[in-house]
Amino acid sequence: MNNIPLLPRTILGCDADYDSAETVVFGAPFDGTATYRPGSRFAPAAIRTESIGLETYSPYQDLDMPEDKICDMGDLDLPFGNTGSALKIIRNTAEAILKSGKKPVMIGGEHLVSLPAIEAALSLYPGLHIIHFDAHADLREEYIGEQLSHSSVMRRVYDLTGNNRIHQYGIRSGTKEEFLFAKKHTIFHPFDLNSIEDAVTVLKNKKVYLTIDLDILDTGVFPGTGTPEAGGVSFMELIKALIALKPLQIVGADIVELAPNYDTSGCSTAVACKVLRELLLCMSV
Amino acid sequence: MNNIPLLPRTILGCDADYDSAETVVFGAPFDGTATYRPGSRFAPAAIRTESIGLETYSPYQDLDMPEDKICDMGDLDLPFGNTGSALKIIRNTAEAILKSGKKPVMIGGEHLVSLPAIEAALSLYPGLHIIHFDAHADLREEYIGEQLSHSSVMRRVYDLTGNNRIHQYGIRSGTKEEFLFAKKHTIFHPFDLNSIEDAVTVLKNKKVYLTIDLDILDTGVFPGTGTPEAGGVSFMELIKALIALKPLQIVGADIVELAPNYDTSGCSTAVACKVLRELLLCMSV
Amino acid sequence: MNNIPLLPRTILGCDADYDSAETVVFGAPFDGTATYRPGSRFAPAAIRTESIGLETYSPYQDLDMPEDKICDMGDLDLPFGNTGSALKIIRNTAEAILKSGKKPVMIGGEHLVSLPAIEAALSLYPGLHIIHFDAHADLREEYIGEQLSHSSVMRRVYDLTGNNRIHQYGIRSGTKEEFLFAKKHTIFHPFDLNSIEDAVTVLKNKKVYLTIDLDILDTGVFPGTGTPEAGGVSFMELIKALIALKPLQIVGADIVELAPNYDTSGCSTAVACKVLRELLLCMSV
Amino acid sequence: MNNIPLLPRTILGCDADYDSAETVVFGAPFDGTATYRPGSRFAPAAIRTESIGLETYSPYQDLDMPEDKICDMGDLDLPFGNTGSALKIIRNTAEAILKSGKKPVMIGGEHLVSLPAIEAALSLYPGLHIIHFDAHADLREEYIGEQLSHSSVMRRVYDLTGNNRIHQYGIRSGTKEEFLFAKKHTIFHPFDLNSIEDAVTVLKNKKVYLTIDLDILDTGVFPGTGTPEAGGVSFMELIKALIALKPLQIVGADIVELAPNYDTSGCSTAVACKVLRELLLCMSV
Amino acid sequence: MNNIPLLPRTILGCDADYDSAETVVFGAPFDGTATYRPGSRFAPAAIRTESIGLETYSPYQDLDMPEDKICDMGDLDLPFGNTGSALKIIRNTAEAILKSGKKPVMIGGEHLVSLPAIEAALSLYPGLHIIHFDAHADLREEYIGEQLSHSSVMRRVYDLTGNNRIHQYGIRSGTKEEFLFAKKHTIFHPFDLNSIEDAVTVLKNKKVYLTIDLDILDTGVFPGTGTPEAGGVSFMELIKALIALKPLQIVGADIVELAPNYDTSGCSTAVACKVLRELLLCMSV
Amino acid sequence: MNNIPLLPRTILGCDADYDSAETVVFGAPFDGTATYRPGSRFAPAAIRTESIGLETYSPYQDLDMPEDKICDMGDLDLPFGNTGSALKIIRNTAEAILKSGKKPVMIGGEHLVSLPAIEAALSLYPGLHIIHFDAHADLREEYIGEQLSHSSVMRRVYDLTGNNRIHQYGIRSGTKEEFLFAKKHTIFHPFDLNSIEDAVTVLKNKKVYLTIDLDILDTGVFPGTGTPEAGGVSFMELIKALIALKPLQIVGADIVELAPNYDTSGCSTAVACKVLRELLLCMSV
Repeated sequence: MNNIPLLPRTILGCDADYDSAETVVFGAPFDGTATYRPGSRFAPAAIRTESIGLETYSPYQDLDMPEDKICDMGDLDLPFGNTGSALKIIRNTAEAILKSGKKPVMIGGEHLVSLPAIEAALSLYPGLHIIHFDAHADLREEYIGEQLSHSSVMRRVYDLTGNNRIHQYGIRSGTKEEFLFAKKHTIFHPFDLNSIEDAVTVLKNKKVYLTIDLDILDTGVFPGTGTPEAGGVSFMELIKALIALKPLQIVGADIVELAPNYDTSGCSTAVACKVLRELLLCMSV
Repeated sequence: MNNIPLLPRTILGCDADYDSAETVVFGAPFDGTATYRPGSRFAPAAIRTESIGLETYSPYQDLDMPEDKICDMGDLDLPFGNTGSALKIIRNTAEAILKSGKKPVMIGGEHLVSLPAIEAALSLYPGLHIIHFDAHADLREEYIGEQLSHSSVMRRVYDLTGNNRIHQYGIRSGTKEEFLFAKKHTIFHPFDLNSIEDAVTVLKNKKVYLTIDLDILDTGVFPGTGTPEAGGVSFMELIKALIALKPLQIVGADIVELAPNYDTSGCSTAVACKVLRELLLCMSV
Repeated sequence: MNNIPLLPRTILGCDADYDSAETVVFGAPFDGTATYRPGSRFAPAAIRTESIGLETYSPYQDLDMPEDKICDMGDLDLPFGNTGSALKIIRNTAEAILKSGKKPVMIGGEHLVSLPAIEAALSLYPGLHIIHFDAHADLREEYIGEQLSHSSVMRRVYDLTGNNRIHQYGIRSGTKEEFLFAKKHTIFHPFDLNSIEDAVTVLKNKKVYLTIDLDILDTGVFPGTGTPEAGGVSFMELIKALIALKPLQIVGADIVELAPNYDTSGCSTAVACKVLRELLLCMSV
Repeated sequence: MNNIPLLPRTILGCDADYDSAETVVFGAPFDGTATYRPGSRFAPAAIRTESIGLETYSPYQDLDMPEDKICDMGDLDLPFGNTGSALKIIRNTAEAILKSGKKPVMIGGEHLVSLPAIEAALSLYPGLHIIHFDAHADLREEYIGEQLSHSSVMRRVYDLTGNNRIHQYGIRSGTKEEFLFAKKHTIFHPFDLNSIEDAVTVLKNKKVYLTIDLDILDTGVFPGTGTPEAGGVSFMELIKALIALKPLQIVGADIVELAPNYDTSGCSTAVACKVLRELLLCMSV
Repeated sequence: MNNIPLLPRTILGCDADYDSAETVVFGAPFDGTATYRPGSRFAPAAIRTESIGLETYSPYQDLDMPEDKICDMGDLDLPFGNTGSALKIIRNTAEAILKSGKKPVMIGGEHLVSLPAIEAALSLYPGLHIIHFDAHADLREEYIGEQLSHSSVMRRVYDLTGNNRIHQYGIRSGTKEEFLFAKKHTIFHPFDLNSIEDAVTVLKNKKVYLTIDLDILDTGVFPGTGTPEAGGVSFMELIKALIALKPLQIVGADIVELAPNYDTSGCSTAVACKVLRELLLCMSV
Repeated sequence: MNNIPLLPRTILGCDADYDSAETVVFGAPFDGTATYRPGSRFAPAAIRTESIGLETYSPYQDLDMPEDKICDMGDLDLPFGNTGSALKIIRNTAEAILKSGKKPVMIGGEHLVSLPAIEAALSLYPGLHIIHFDAHADLREEYIGEQLSHSSVMRRVYDLTGNNRIHQYGIRSGTKEEFLFAKKHTIFHPFDLNSIEDAVTVLKNKKVYLTIDLDILDTGVFPGTGTPEAGGVSFMELIKALIALKPLQIVGADIVELAPNYDTSGCSTAVACKVLRELLLCMSV
């Protein structure tokens, strides 16, 4: 079938094959512990379909997406109703990517999917720091009796890292206990991204995992998410913070909590696609 | 605060207090194993809010909803991400209602919530038969490795009852294995409700639990559901089948799989409210 | 500005000027007493915009819409919050049309707008009969203390006509009292349109006003309405009933209760446009 | 029924009973004079259902919602089509709350519902000042012949208070006459909330009623409203203005004009819930 | 990357590679001449994503989708704004598939995409008959001056075949001229599929191309289409007609005019997926 | 029909007749080359219907819309599938308006409709400058083989004007080649409107055509567009830029790329209405 023009089946600009890729994108369509509004499971497919509306060129970084360096591996086939099994598959995937010398970039799914990806990264890089962009502290000891929950994911990460290894930005929702815990145990920059340079300074020459809960964005620009919180950062503030992090050694990353169906205009998905493009460009050498 | 007119906070016509009620309605807002499209968790709240658009009078049965006989207990507070815990709370609730001599009517949630309610009914009525209205056979041995899944719920019920105790109606989707299993082990009336009189004849004087997966309805009249299947029964066919069952001793029932957000017209919720009204009238003496 | 092709600004096929028209269509965008879900005020504008998706030819009647016989007068400018003033403007409009020897066809708005139009017709034709297609009896003596309400409109008409002048079809919702009242005082054909020939026989050579509450249609085919009631008639049943009425002397008519925004697919509006086309063809000689 | 965990039926954190409460929240689901797009009647129920997605803790005020001090009384049962009757019920409710020494916080409904609440407050506190957040001046002498209209509500309040007792903020839409009237007769701060400190200074030690038309917010963050006006304030500007007012003696307040169905993402409702939480915290000692 | 479970990237059950396939599915995402409501371009991607909600087993045919016999080739990359270029790419694709001894099954796009596919089939099978399921006659000589339009597609096919080679079913909309033309020049079964056996009898042992405009379905069950026409056939009527055609030699087929975005419930897409499954099973030996 | 109050059928405040008008508004409902998401064809009708929610008074300019100076000519009847014919009709229309000494203000449709309007203006004013507000550079030499495309419209304008006659503002998306081209050949102010005074200075006393692609706005405030790009300007920034241009001699203008159906809240349409009002006021003397 020569000469028949076909549309790509991968995320925009992620057309490398696995072996030649430096970065591997994969979807983790799991939202089984979402307590308020589920639907982030639909994010990876939505991003794959809608990314063709985007350009490969970023005027913000004056860069084109690199050819043959980023692979879109597709979406994991995850069970619902058994959180443990789902997390294990994610961990195995992230670990396999990291062990082959590549950088995983995961598209959630709910925020809990970040836990196994970070575990995998910690197993290779025990001194890893985590940069956490989010509206929510996600530091609960448990939620309705469950320790594995999207509301507890950074607390579970804390259980692995201990003090001052999680750098939280944008947090504007949580219990009083979570805010107290954050002030004590994480490097805590609530409400916005204004002090992102602090992270850049502190983390120079350190391995970093970046987890972006897209609900750090204002609900005006990103309504398509499970637990919307007004008062967030603007798209340009997020992009500028991402670009600020470019000098760091980001060994893995994720963007989570797009729930595309809540925004019938499609703009939340378009926003997520663009954040992903800028993230991938920041992680390219 | 005398003389201030207030809107009711309960489902239409379900204003009895618990002790004086003969029937107890409660919501089980759980959809943690939904594999295709979640959202049935929002059904109980939607039915409670929207039922005020309905009349208490059924022209089909020429009956008004009985005063002081039906209690709306509210919605259970269920954990997500731990299916076992959620099912246990439901079972305890159904059992408590049954033991106090009342009939539970549960509003799902996904179909898996029927399992603990049926378990509770079986513990009191070991010879119980189950009438199952559904588009899906729900007879898988497992689904993506999980035995507790909305796709396996009637198989798990079968594990408890054995052959010829489940009367399936309307089934029009499943694997080849499920259809073979149904033909062998359940009393199987696929595609429609035309032979509902068979159940009435067979089950006279027997205790019955009725589980209604609302996706038995055609997608035209009921688009608001997680796994829509075209080619279903009409609303009037469902109502007529319900009324046909009135002579049976229905000791408990549920309606599941309304996912209201997928139908922005609100009509799926209105349909569910009316099915609930007719069901409650059928279960009243 | 010759030779510039412009889209029409009127409802499809209603391009006659007022003086030469035999039938005059106008919108009454009022929904001030809607108790459950407002929005029928948007119907006339939606029908005007969307009717261009339709053909002027009806294959059901093998007829083209007549040229230069139907005028689209536009939409009345009605106050909200003062039901009396709004009804008065409608009555004046219908009366003016009738007195000039033309037939008014009104697009609601909620069903209460039919009252002043029927009053106008009764003032000219005191022996008028009313054919009423609806899901709801609309026969309440009052509603939350109000006598002028969409739920009471046919009761107010009854106050003017007395017994056996209202022919009700399709009714499937109301209070017990309304159903008892209907059985006693109207010519009552609940649930469907199967006995439409009764009306044709009885009303031959009599002046008739036809009021069509579009919620007589099943919610599957017509979800865009304020108080949706499952179990209604199909589109073809409605069209066939309309065509059956063609031999009668219909002196005025209305279609009410399209609330277009509840059906984001636009299909409810498309249905209403087609019902309007068939109605206008039935009223043409 | 011990030990069965149930979800709350009240607005988040408003679980005090009436007698022990200091603040009483109630819904006024009336939108009968809405001229452009109705639907604010659905706001109280939406806020009650969706508020469970919120935290009781405000990081902006570093405060948890007080236990046992705020009562959610439920929603008034108001007639449509008779504006006078509806307003009377609201007035009676607000007056009863005020007379029992509590502070009413009303959830509209359209802005006209503020009139009877303010009347009630004026009857107890004749020297009352009104702070008015809104996109619209609402100062028309009449609207389409009606004096009682959402577009005239502040003019009717002015009729009661006279000059310089209404402090308007954020106004960016109205007729030329309204703007001239405002400049002459109210304390007028159009377009934004930048000069909120003026009100704080002027009103220290004075009784104040605060009426918040949520359409003061930008349409980007609050599309779910009847008459959307681009160019409004951000969520954070509104929250900061609210907190600035905390030193004042706010004896009653309302938030109006959420029309939740126009924003299928649910974010407008989430915004309204958060504004309500911050408002309630500001009014707590 | 062994042992990592991934979701399929093809339409359900269409996982054969091109060379081993007997049937080749491809998408033609073009809607450039849609005059009323565009959006059918989104159909192929929607069907690919949503088909995973379906089973591979058809209870209607008691058949599983055959393994390794159906290939999903992906979607053509078609230019907008130049109808001729787009049609040429489609023709080349269909011709290449047919010449390699396979059967093309195209997913539109608007109905005009059927023209080049039928041209390709006619070039191989000059005596080909066309079975046409549709709400619209599509027999206009031109539309707003254009000869290549979705409203003219069957007229252009007629230009190639001459009389009595097009078998039209379900037509319920068109101009008077189109209906007259159809009665004279096509084998015309308007309104429904009741006489489908006529086609089976007449076409036994003849090569047939089957073009299914999904708007033949009633708008209740299929609102997601560009030009919705109430009064169509039910899903079961369509499926039974398809199965009736199984004995014929269908050398190519298409399903067109799904416009998924107009139906936010997703049910129209689910319907289209099931029609496609049944069509593919009918075309398998 | 005296004394019957009717709603206007024109865009708010555009009620002059053609001959007496200084400015003529018309709709160009064409989106035939839209490559990503079509639907801008629905913009003119949406603006006409929704503009009645607006005031004629602008508080930003302290001006009322002038009476009897602006004519709403209605919407052109344009063919789909033949780009050339559609563009010709637009050109003829714009030219006729310009030749009669009036200023055309066109409502798109996709951005390609600006090309014939600008051609018409250039034919009268050969030294014309073009101010271009947009998120996209629209400077491609071709797009999928087509030279007439919404992605190429400013390149085609450039073909007519040569260097330094196009003043681009707000551009934040395009290929690398387009950005290089813009830097070389247009007066390029990417990302925002901050340097709008540059245009005012340079263009004083020059004839100017202003083309506003509304997607220059941030997706938060304007989601209803075909190719949404996050990171745009705010509504107030756009309005202030418009007012800044008031001293220039704007001989024609357009606003394009509203696709109203993607924003079910209606806010994008409301935004477009207000931009149109401010634009018309800026162009009035």
